[in-house]
Parts: sequence; C-alpha cells; structure tokens
Amino acid sequence: MKYVYLFSEGNGGMRELLGGKGANLAEMVNLGMPVPMGFTVTTEACTKYYEDGETIAPEVEAQIFEYMSKLEEICGKKFGDKNNPLLVSVRSGARASMPGMMDTILNLGLNDTVAQGMVKLTGNPRFVYDSYRRFIQMFSDVVMELPKSSFEGFIDEIKERKGVQYDSELTTEDFQELVGTFKKFYKEKMGSDFPSDPRVQLMEAVKAVFRSWNNPRAIAYRRLNDIPGSWGTAVNVQSMVFGNMGDDSGTGVAFTRDPSTGEKKLYGEFLMNAQGEDVVAGIRTPQSINQLKETNPKVYEEFVAIANKLEKHYKDMQDMEFTIEKGKLYMLQTRNGKRTAFAALRVAVDMVNEGMCTKEEAILKIDPKQLDSLLHPQFDAEALKKVKPVASGLAASPGAACGAVYFTAEDAKQAAARGPVLLVRNETSPEDIEGMAAAQGILTATGGRTSHAAVVARGMGTCCVAGCGAIKINEEGKYLTVNGVRVNEGEIMSIDGTTGNVYVGAIPTVEASVSGDFATVMSWTDEIRTLKVRTNADTPADAAAAVKLGAEGIGLTRTEHMFFEADRIPAVREMIISENEEQRRKALDKLLPMQRNDFEGIFKAMGELPVTIRLLDPPLHEFLPTDDEDIAELAENMGVSFEYLKATIRGLHETNPMMGHRGCRLAVTYPEIAEMQARAIVEAAINVKKETGYNIVPEIMIPLPGEAKEFGFVKNVVKKTADAIIAESGVELKYMVGTMVEIPRACLTADEIAREAEFFSFGTNDLTQMTFGFSRDDAGKFLDAYFEKQIFENDPFERLDQTGVGKLVETACKLGRSARPNIKLGVCGEHGGEPSSVEFFHRVGLDYVSCSPFRVPIARLAAAQAQLKYPRQ
Amino acid sequence: MKYVYLFSEGNGGMRELLGGKGANLAEMVNLGMPVPMGFTVTTEACTKYYEDGETIAPEVEAQIFEYMSKLEEICGKKFGDKNNPLLVSVRSGARASMPGMMDTILNLGLNDTVAQGMVKLTGNPRFVYDSYRRFIQMFSDVVMELPKSSFEGFIDEIKERKGVQYDSELTTEDFQELVGTFKKFYKEKMGSDFPSDPRVQLMEAVKAVFRSWNNPRAIAYRRLNDIPGSWGTAVNVQSMVFGNMGDDSGTGVAFTRDPSTGEKKLYGEFLMNAQGEDVVAGIRTPQSINQLKETNPKVYEEFVAIANKLEKHYKDMQDMEFTIEKGKLYMLQTRNGKRTAFAALRVAVDMVNEGMCTKEEAILKIDPKQLDSLLHPQFDAEALKKVKPVASGLAASPGAACGAVYFTAEDAKQAAARGPVLLVRNETSPEDIEGMAAAQGILTATGGRTSHAAVVARGMGTCCVAGCGAIKINEEGKYLTVNGVRVNEGEIMSIDGTTGNVYVGAIPTVEASVSGDFATVMSWTDEIRTLKVRTNADTPADAAAAVKLGAEGIGLTRTEHMFFEADRIPAVREMIISENEEQRRKALDKLLPMQRNDFEGIFKAMGELPVTIRLLDPPLHEFLPTDDEDIAELAENMGVSFEYLKATIRGLHETNPMMGHRGCRLAVTYPEIAEMQARAIVEAAINVKKETGYNIVPEIMIPLPGEAKEFGFVKNVVKKTADAIIAESGVELKYMVGTMVEIPRACLTADEIAREAEFFSFGTNDLTQMTFGFSRDDAGKFLDAYFEKQIFENDPFERLDQTGVGKLVETACKLGRSARPNIKLGVCGEHGGEPSSVEFFHRVGLDYVSCSPFRVPIARLAAAQAQLKYPRQ
Repeated sequence: MKYVYLFSEGNGGMRELLGGKGANLAEMVNLGMPVPMGFTVTTEACTKYYEDGETIAPEVEAQIFEYMSKLEEICGKKFGDKNNPLLVSVRSGARASMPGMMDTILNLGLNDTVAQGMVKLTGNPRFVYDSYRRFIQMFSDVVMELPKSSFEGFIDEIKERKGVQYDSELTTEDFQELVGTFKKFYKEKMGSDFPSDPRVQLMEAVKAVFRSWNNPRAIAYRRLNDIPGSWGTAVNVQSMVFGNMGDDSGTGVAFTRDPSTGEKKLYGEFLMNAQGEDVVAGIRTPQSINQLKETNPKVYEEFVAIANKLEKHYKDMQDMEFTIEKGKLYMLQTRNGKRTAFAALRVAVDMVNEGMCTKEEAILKIDPKQLDSLLHPQFDAEALKKVKPVASGLAASPGAACGAVYFTAEDAKQAAARGPVLLVRNETSPEDIEGMAAAQGILTATGGRTSHAAVVARGMGTCCVAGCGAIKINEEGKYLTVNGVRVNEGEIMSIDGTTGNVYVGAIPTVEASVSGDFATVMSWTDEIRTLKVRTNADTPADAAAAVKLGAEGIGLTRTEHMFFEADRIPAVREMIISENEEQRRKALDKLLPMQRNDFEGIFKAMGELPVTIRLLDPPLHEFLPTDDEDIAELAENMGVSFEYLKATIRGLHETNPMMGHRGCRLAVTYPEIAEMQARAIVEAAINVKKETGYNIVPEIMIPLPGEAKEFGFVKNVVKKTADAIIAESGVELKYMVGTMVEIPRACLTADEIAREAEFFSFGTNDLTQMTFGFSRDDAGKFLDAYFEKQIFENDPFERLDQTGVGKLVETACKLGRSARPNIKLGVCGEHGGEPSSVEFFHRVGLDYVSCSPFRVPIARLAAAQAQLKYPRQ
Repeated sequence: MKYVYLFSEGNGGMRELLGGKGANLAEMVNLGMPVPMGFTVTTEACTKYYEDGETIAPEVEAQIFEYMSKLEEICGKKFGDKNNPLLVSVRSGARASMPGMMDTILNLGLNDTVAQGMVKLTGNPRFVYDSYRRFIQMFSDVVMELPKSSFEGFIDEIKERKGVQYDSELTTEDFQELVGTFKKFYKEKMGSDFPSDPRVQLMEAVKAVFRSWNNPRAIAYRRLNDIPGSWGTAVNVQSMVFGNMGDDSGTGVAFTRDPSTGEKKLYGEFLMNAQGEDVVAGIRTPQSINQLKETNPKVYEEFVAIANKLEKHYKDMQDMEFTIEKGKLYMLQTRNGKRTAFAALRVAVDMVNEGMCTKEEAILKIDPKQLDSLLHPQFDAEALKKVKPVASGLAASPGAACGAVYFTAEDAKQAAARGPVLLVRNETSPEDIEGMAAAQGILTATGGRTSHAAVVARGMGTCCVAGCGAIKINEEGKYLTVNGVRVNEGEIMSIDGTTGNVYVGAIPTVEASVSGDFATVMSWTDEIRTLKVRTNADTPADAAAAVKLGAEGIGLTRTEHMFFEADRIPAVREMIISENEEQRRKALDKLLPMQRNDFEGIFKAMGELPVTIRLLDPPLHEFLPTDDEDIAELAENMGVSFEYLKATIRGLHETNPMMGHRGCRLAVTYPEIAEMQARAIVEAAINVKKETGYNIVPEIMIPLPGEAKEFGFVKNVVKKTADAIIAESGVELKYMVGTMVEIPRACLTADEIAREAEFFSFGTNDLTQMTFGFSRDDAGKFLDAYFEKQIFENDPFERLDQTGVGKLVETACKLGRSARPNIKLGVCGEHGGEPSSVEFFHRVGLDYVSCSPFRVPIARLAAAQAQLKYPRQ
C-alpha cells in the first residue's frame, strides 16, 4: 500500500487520495509552475491512523522517511543536517478545505545545531532565529496546544521593553532570547524539553494533523458543510522557501477575482520580509497586490501570468498563496476561492460570457445553499462588526430582523401595527400563527430546526432563531432575561436567522436584491434540470411569491393553517366538540364557504399550474385551548359548560400526538370532514374554471395512510363527493386523488397503495421521525450528544438520511411504479429544498420536489446540478 | 369459470372453493353415506359478488339454475312444481365455521300452490303448513332481517289462545293461520308481498348468504379468529329431507366425543317430529342421543357406524347433524367439533394412544390460543350462569379474579395483606407496579390491550380487564360508579380477563390445573419444534415460573422494572435530577449493589439457560412524580427545593415520549448508566459462576438503536467496563452484546448493525408502532373505526402485521445474516406468544421467540405446528 506521493507523482484528479491542497500542488508541478517540492501523506494514511487506534503504523512512518530521503535528494539538502539543512512546512489538506483543522507548521527541522548551520549558510542570523522562534511557537500551539497568546505575550513583553512597535524592528538577539524563553515555557508546561530531533518533530506534526481531523471545531464544520467524517485528511510536507530572508523576500495571498463582488480583477495582499500568517495576522499592514507591480514588476508579471493560467486551467476563480524568496516567486497553494453568493453568480455569468466555461460548468460551481442569503434581508456588515451577540440559538430560518419584543402572539399582532416586532416565545404553537405572520422575526427558547416555529417561519420566509436556551421569558411580567440582561416588552432586539445570533438593541439591515445575474443563472438551471420544483404554500400571497421565485406549482397546501384564522376557529372548535355526526356536519357547513373561498384564491393565483391540497392533518386537540382561563372563555362563547369542554379536551389528550388520531385517521373516523374539504376544493375549482377558463386539475392529497384499504376508504369518500358535484355542475373537471407517503408501512406496501393512488408525495419530515423513531420536538435533547460523539454527522431533519429513510423512499418509488407505471412522484417535506436531498430525489426519479417559497431558487439550482451529475431523460 | 359444483363433483380437499360444509358434504357423498343431494355455489362466486358491487352476475345465476335442473333430475322432483315439488335448504359455508353469519333457510321453494301440491303428495297437511310457516319465518328473519321475535310472538299468541304449550300441539289450521299472519306482517313491514316465485326466493337467499359474510358480527368473529375477509363464503343448496313428517321422523346433532371433557363416547341430542333449529331452540326438551338406541335401534346403529367412520376418516372428533325422515337416516353435516382446551388435549392424547393418528397429526388439531384458559383460574361455570356483567372492557390478560376494590396502588398493596384485592385505576403507570403485583386482578378505565396495565399484567400472569370505559373512578371520594351502580373502596367486584366482563359482587373461581395430558402434549411439541421458546421475566420468581412452563431461557429482562421498587426509587430519582456526571455516578453507585443482587437472583434461577438483560429503556420522567403534592414530598426527601425539582421534571417533559429520550439514547447521553448496569450484570454473573459453577453467558441487550455507530458507541461502553471487571476477577466469563431491533431504520441498516451486534432481538411492539406510525396508547381512539370499516382485520399489536412490519423483520434477518452468518435472532415483543406470529417467526428463521411466562406453552405448541407446516432444519 502506497501512503506517500511526491508532488510530481500526483495530479489534480487525485483529490480523494491527496486532499485538495496536495492534488493542486501536484497539478501546479505538472503545469511547470514554480512550486517548492514536497510530498503528500494520503488520506488513506489518516483513515488507517484512526483504524489503528490513533497511532501511525510503522509502514506509514517508513514511507514518510523514504520520501523524505527522496525530497532531500531533489533539494540537495538534508533534513536535520547542520551544514546544509532541509526545513519543511507541514500542512493539512482535506478533500474540501476545512477551517476547523490544524493548518500549518513552518520551518520544521530546526534545532539549536541546525540553526547554527543555517546561520553559516545564509549569513543571516536574524532570519534564522526569526524562523526558529516561529517554529517553536507554531509547533507548541498546533501540535501541543499550548496557548498562542502566551507566546505573543512574550513577544509583546520584549517589544515593550525595547520600545518598538513591529516584529521587524526586533534584532537577532531578541529572537535568540525569544527562542530561549519559548523553550523554557514549553518545558514548564509540557514537563519535557522541546523536541530537538527533526524526525520526532515531523512525526508529531503529522499526528497532530490527523488528530485535528476530529477536533470539535472540525466536526462542527463538517456537519454544517456536509463533509463525511470518513474522508480523512492528507498531510503535505513541503520544502521551505522563506519570505523572511530580507526585503527582497515576502509572502502574499491573492484571488483572481474579487470574492465579495465577483469583479474580474486581481484581488489580494502581500507583505515583504514576512512569513506565513503575518499577512493575515495584522502584525504589519499588508499592501495591496497591485503594489507588487511597483515593488517587483518581474515577479508581479510572473504571478499574473500564473494566476490567469490557473484560472483558465481550473475554469474557476482561484485563491492562491505565494512566497518570494530573494526575488524569486514560489507558488504554495491554489484552490477554488470562496466567495459571496453575489460574487458566485457574477463569476458564473462572467465566465460563461468570457467563454471560459460552459453554462453547465458554471452552474456546478455555485453552492445552492448560498443563494439563501440573497433572498432575505441581512444585517449591515459594517454595523455588525460593532456589536456582540448576547446569546445564540439555532439558525432556524434565514434573514435578519430587528424589532420590539412581544411575548404573546396577540400582543405582537397588535404592536405590529405600530412598527416592526419580534415575537419571542418559549415555543410557538399553531394558535400563534397570526402573531408569527405579523412579526419581522421569531425567537424561541426551546425547539429545534424543525420545531413549529422553524417550519412555519421558513414557510413564511420570516427570520427565526429557535431553541435559544439562554432566553428566560417571564410572560406575566412581560420581560425576558438573557445572560443577565433584562429586556422589557416593547424594547428592541435583533436576531440573525442565518447565524443564530441574538442581539439586544437595533442593528440596521440591508434589503435583499435579486440582480440580473441571479435571473440569468436561474434561467440556465431551468434549461438543464428535469426535476420540477413546486412550493409549499397555504395562501394566495405565498403562492404568488413562490411563482415569482420560479415555483412550477404547489406541492403542498396545508388546509389546517386556514382553520386557525380568527373568523373560522369558532366553527372549527364547534366541529371538534360535536357529540355526533349531525352537529359536526352543521359546524362543517359553516366552514365550507370559507374553505372554498381559500381554495378559489389559490387556484386563481396559480392559474393552470398544478396545486396539491392536503386534507386536514393535525390532531384535533391542537385547535383547542389548554389553559383553564381560555377554556372558560371558549365554553362561554360556545354555550357549553366549562366542565363539558374541559372533559372533551381531556378526552382528546394524546400520549404521543405525533402518532395519534390525525391525518387520514380523522377522515376514517369522521368522513364528513373529508367530504366538506373535497366539496370545497371541487366547488372552488369549478368556480374558478368558470370564471377564468383555466384548465384546473386539483390534486387532492390524503395524508398519513399506512394501508391501502385505509387510503381507499378515504379516496372513496372524496370521489363520491367530487363526482356528484361535478356531475351536477355540468362543468368538465378532472381531478386527482393521491397520498402523502410519510409512514414506513406506506413505503413498504406502496404497490398496494399505488393501485388506488394517482400520485405520491413523500412527507419526509414524518417519515424521518418514524424511521428513526424519534420525534423532532424531543430529539433536540439528545441530538447534540449524537453530533458530539460522531454518531450522526448531520441532522436527519435537515438533510435526508439516504441510508435509512432514503431506502424507504426508493422502495416506495419502485413498488409504486410497479403497480402504476405513470404514477406522479414528488416530495413535500422540508428536505425538498435541501441540495443533497434534492440530488437524491433526482436520482430516485421523482417528478418534482416542493419546498418553502424562499427555497425554490435553491431547489432549482440543486436540481440542475443533479441533472448534470446524474443525467436522466 | 365454474361457480357451482354438485356434491358428487367435490371432495373434502376442496374446502377453499366449496367451504367447509360443502367440502364435507361432498366427502360424505364420496364415502357413500346417505346425504341428500345438492350443490355448492363457490366462495369465488362470493368474491365476485363483492367485486361486482354486491350483485350476482348473470353467469353465476345461470349456473345456479343449470345445477338446479341437474338436482331436479337426480331427485326426480321439480323446483316450484305444484305436483311434485323439490324443496331445498340454503346454508352458508365458509372455509372455517363462522357463527356470526347467516346459517340456514329450510323448505325453500314453498308457496301457496306448491303447498297444496305437497298436501296432495304427502297427505300430511299439518307437516306441509308447519314447513311453510317455518320457511316464511326463516326467510323473513335471515334474508329480510325482520325480527325473529315478532314471528315467535305470533306463535305464542296462538298457543295462548288455544291454551297449549308446545308447537307439536298446534293443528294444521293453526299453521295455516300462521302462514297468513306471517305473510301479512311481511307485507306490512316490507311494503311488498312475500315472494312466491321459488327462483326469486332462491336468489334472494343466496344473496343473503353472501351479504352475511360482511355483517358486523361476522367481521368481529373473523377478527377474533384470524379469518381473512378475502376468503368469502360458499352457499350450499340441498334437497330437503323432513324431520317433521311425523313421529317416525326427527332431527339431531351429535359429537363423536364429549366436547367438554374429551371422553370417548357419543354425545348429543335429538328430537322426533322436529326440524332444524328445534333441537337447540328449547321448544321441547330434546333427548340424549343414547335414547335413540331405544327409539330406533336400526337408525342408531347406522348413525354410530357413520360417526365412527367419519372420525377415523377425518382423524378428528366430529360434530354431525342428521335428520330421520320416516325412519330413514340422512346426514346433513359433519365437521371437526369445537371443544374445550381440556378436551382438546385429552382427544389428542387418546387419539394417538388409540392409533387413530400420529403425534404430529394430533398436534395440528389443537388451537394454541385455547391453552391460555388452562393456565389461569376461571370463574365457576355454574356460578357464572347466575350473574350478569355490569360492564365489559378489553380482555387484556386472561383468568378470573375477585376481590375488594382499591383505587391506588398503595391502598391496594396494604389491603392485600388482609385479603384478595382488585386494583382499579384509570390507567396504571410504572409507579403502580407494587400494587399491581399485590392485586388478584387489575381493572382499568382507559388503555388498550397493550397498555401498561395489560402488558404488565400478562407478564405477571395476573388477570386484567382494560379500557372498561363504563367505570368512572372518583379517587378522592374512594368509590367508582359503573352503569349507575356505586361501588365503594373495599367492596367486592369480579373481573374476567378472558372475556372482558366485569361484575359487581363475588363469583367463586376454580383453580387452573395442568393435567397429565397437558404435559404429554407439551413433550411432543418439544420433540417436534426447531424454534426455541424463551420468556420475558424481570424477577427470579417469574423466571422460575416460566421455566416450569417450559421456557428455555430469558429473552427479555427489563431492568427498569427493578428501578421502581421502594428501596431503590430514591436512588433512581437522585440519579435523574443530578446536575452533572459526578452526582449521577454517586447515585448510580447506590443502585449498583441492588441491581447486582437482582441479576444474581435471576442467574441462579435460570442456571445455564441463556438470559438476555436489556439496559435501561424508558424515558427518565417515568420515574418522577407528576402531582405537585408528590413533587413537594419528593423535594423534601431529596433535600432540594420544590421549584428546582419541578423545573427538572418540566425539563424532562416530552411531546412524544414514545419517540423521545429513551433506550440507548440514555446511554449515549449518560454513558455512566450503561456502565453501572454492565458492571452489575457482569459482577453478578461472576459471583454466581463462582458460587454455583454454572457456565453463565449473559446476553447484554442495548435497546432502540437506529444506527450502527449508535449501537457501537454503547457497546464500547459496555465492553470496556465488562472486560476490565473480568480481567480483574480472574474468572473466565464469556458474554454477548446484542441489540433490540425495534426501529424501522435498524431493520433497514441491519447489516451495518450486525457487524457490531452479536444478537438481534426484535422488539415488535415498538417496531409496530413506528412502522404504522401510531402509538399503542393512542390508537384505541380510532382502531375500532378501522375494524368496523374493514380497513384492519385485526389488531397489529396482537397479531404481527406480516405485510408491513413482517417485511422489515425479514429484511433485518437477511441483512443481519449477510453481515454475521451465525447471528442469534429472536423476538421479545408481545407477538412472541401469538400463534400466527410465532409461525411467521419460524418461517423467517428466528432462533427463538420470547413471551410472558403464561404464554410459553402456547408458543411451544405454535412453534411445533409451524415446524410441521414449514419444516426447517
């Protein structure tokens, strides 16, 4: 097994084995660019390190030193040699760049003897001891985890003592003193001498890189960026070139385009007589890359040529590091540069216009998730720098909001007439819906990313921070405290739903603007993709907003959201507390015209685009109050006794409401509810068809069946109602009856269900809950431990679990098609707007995904990328 | 398609097509027995009837009349002919006999004209008009559903008027008058004349039989007896012979053995000059079959010969109907006779001893479910006849109990010292465990067959009636009311867990006795079966009881049941409200010796039989009180503030506890709990091994994982603890670590899990909940509607759903074996003791089933039957 590759043995396609940095270094070597030679220890060596119980196997170590010999030969220097020493840098390099990990150790191979040798060799003792102290500092920090600040403290001390401001003003003797101080400090803290054997230094550094793959920051970063823990990281060992050899030396970083705006111009900074992190560390103020033209025009020209060549080669904006040693340019790294969403779109469009790449290639370079930030207001970046968050919670729905805090939906709704409002609740419930709609942002103390608040907020496109445990609400006292700060009702707070940060006071926001590049890129995605994108929308306004964002239909209208509105909740409650079918029908008769009106609005907004309407889904107790006071009020309004109403509510109580009397189970026990809803849908479709001439084909969706006969029973209720109305109306109306597949048993018996159902729409939220056996409302209590212990790499409610839940989806698609080859297949769970899930749904052959309006552009881009990666008809 | 068969065209093997009755009639014809000829309309015709929207297709009708012509030819009579009329009986006949369905219409083909012809033919007008009025009566009742009682009222009226007691005293004129009265009543009620056309009569009767397949009683019966709704029923049309032609005619029923005791002797009754139901209707007192020897020795001898021949032929006890027409014997039906459990065992053993059948054949004739009644006390049958139930609930755990009622576990426990006690609760919770153990029986007002009360009661072998909604408990007032009756604390009630009946007052019980035949049959099952049977047991006493009933190990010890005992609950609570790991470990240290002691007891009771111990499973809030008063008391005992404790309990609240922080999720967040339990298990095993020399191999079971890494994490905690203890002890101890497979995702990823787990035990209760997406605690509210509407044919918590849940079990077995060929597979859910489920588990190749102790014999028999039907190595 080969665990080590010289840069000259690799190439840019070997990213999996060599990591991104290693593969790109190899590629630059192949392109004949000036790269200091080195070798890469593979990601497989990292995997082996973990398999072997966090030790480096002798064979791996042997190969490392075998390649060190080769490197010595190439460089004509010897590692640890006092006369002609080879120094190296050691840098991590995973497949994807990962800020959470150990980055760099420079000047490795130095010890007292080697230093003396180097002084002889270079005649530059200041440079040598500067390098030596840097090495001790970096090694102690990143390998031994001694605090960086202690070392900086020693430097500050000496600077103060000497009355100088910059490192560059320190002398050889100062650096020699620092080397001594650092080594003493090291021994004090570690209980042993600083390792002087370069071979020991090297192996410790390699181990530190491997270890850093699993540090908590790296794990967290991977989770947020969908990087599997199994990948591992490579280690790059590269012969040193020195930017700190004097004023003809230096180091810098640059982008081929402006990463903020996407503008095509070299963008970057450099610092002469400096090494490594000095540029970004703010020790001295670095110069703009343009000034290099004056400082060293030859090097500048060479660098520009290389940069252009790299951008053309990679067909993407490059982010590069370089060092100038005594006037000679060396390339240390290149990679595709990170950029803002705004820049990403501009770069894509520009590159296609420049003929540098095709639309397809450009599309694949944009991270769909980034688009989110374009579609919501954001805090002003400058203003944000000046404030500190008081707490943070889950980034549940993106955007930024600032407003006066209110602690009940009612108060928020009233206050919203006077100005922007934040609704702050322990958690929201469906009763809060109007307050939520009125608020600029929603902040909850408990609940996860798929809690009621989060789901509804995303649907509305309203900013939301959920599960911010530091918030303690005193609803009666009308104030909250957060980490010692008290905020009264009506005082201003700001929340950032993109980061999860919570602030006391106001922060100015900037509005989202969808530029021409956005529209251009979106039109490309529509040319490419085969997967349709619909939206989840419950109101004509949501529906219209989604169509503007490119939705090609509605995949989910939740009829229960309409039930909560003030004008209809009394009738809903009357229906629920009915003692018999007759009473229930009377209450339903009151709801019928209102529901019909809702559906007319939606049909008008959508024209001939398909609309899927789901029959009543939540357990009935969600519509009733829980507090005695509210119950008493309702009892009086309804003309029933408090005791009767309380008993009814108690009777509706469920131990596990998620798995209770809901979904089509309601229609099985009370078919008259499904009848009323079917009637409202069909009558609305007929009315709008008559009025507008649109050819409307409503898709009526029956939620939650687990058994074909169950679906069949409700379908018959719907069909009987619908067919009678259509026949009576004399209008020709087609409609479909299908089902929401969200119970494992529905997937397992999908062939039987498909014999009855004309379409499936996967409800992957509930399917995830049932397949994992945990409820999204409760999982928050233990999921963090699962992330920490690396049992889960990401939240299955955010990113579809393809291994388990995905297997059920796939099974259901296959079985469904076997029974009904032309069955329409879609998804309307939260995953419909998450890129990796969209790719999965594309691969298993769904016809469409449906997501909240603000995720429609993300889904369109993700669907186009999926088509490019996995072409289908 | 052939929908009709003459009896002479069929045979006993055609039960599926001809139904039981039809196949047996055909078989008797083939055996040359005196059977009136007739034909059978097949079960496929019934299926077609339903497929065709409850109409009889013209082709079926045509075949019926084609065969009627054949029958006319054979009998030399004509249907509807006034000179030589053919009369027929029409009887239903499903594959399995089904009391809920329409049974019989006799004398079909009569009308005024035919009656006159028959009078001429027989010279017996009394017989003719008796037959005629019977026909109108039966037709009106079973075809038109006019109330039987109205007709009986008319007969009583005429008897009273004439001052006679028996039907036999009525005259020709009386019967003629009745015919008139009946027809008039029919017209009044139905709005049309009684159908005089025999062809119409016949088709209406056939339709009525088909219809009766789906009447509510039939559906309920099918659910209780595992008969699929898809089978349908056949219809038998048979030429009439008449037991009411005078004193040389009669009718009777008889068994070849005593169905109560199994004794080998002819057992039955007959009545001369009577027809059909007269024998069982109690119109006159029938005579014992032995008296037929004197009444008509020739017929008796002939009947005995036929009975013996049939028993030998079918190798089973027969239940026969016969008619004597003018001294000639006719057989109308034979079938395997229903019998008590006691008789079933005796018949099986006797028949093998008599050489009539093999052990294997005998085993297959016993209904495993019946055994239940042998293992529990029952109400004295005579005493039961004299009382009426005041209410009824779900038959949740079999047996009979009577005792003083108490409404809290504490009160029940104290009162139990003074005499037998019934614990009556709205529903029980784990806190009630001691009161439940002390009670003779448990009665709950809410909760289903798999509620806490039901599950625990079955485990204990304690009688339980659950979900008896009529019971209204006033816990403070210490009384209950049930249908208007008030019962105070301490007053006596009786409950029957086999029927679900509830009585006020005492009813004497008789103890269960397991006879020698029981032991004999059980020993046969052990010779035959390949599936092992273990038990679910939490205490040494349960374990010992189960071993007596044949358990071959423990498949499930629930460690949490031990947590509720009075001496340890304080430490458990201390553990739960701990603020950090250190506090938690201190509390766990207190629990360790107690748990170790528990396990020592169980290991001693089980010797070298395998024992599977499950780590802590329920959510922690189950161990904490919910009432403010109890919380205050606990707070004081624990030395914490009321507010603190209340907040802790609130923090533990879960929206859906079934899908919350439980199972191995507890061990992931608090590994120290799993450590303590692993330590207790391993130390106990070492101690008992040292003391007894038993070679104990504990099986440590990790509940509820859905992901291999999750299982792996907890397994590592267990192994690290266990291996250290073993190494230190110097004793050689093997142990296994496996998992309870109860989450759909665990089934879908069973290969990954099996790489880590040494055994799987399917937890089919939870797996059923997750697969169907409904919680057993809440499903009670809607399941009845599902049964009524024929969406479900049976309760998936009682009988494993092989279509959905079974598919997951099968997938898990296959995947598990693919990764670990010798993996041990078992089941420890409630289904482990249900015969159809046991057969399924045998077929998919499990190594064992585990069930509550009292179900062990049922499982042993079911496993033997499964092996006979589906032999495996």
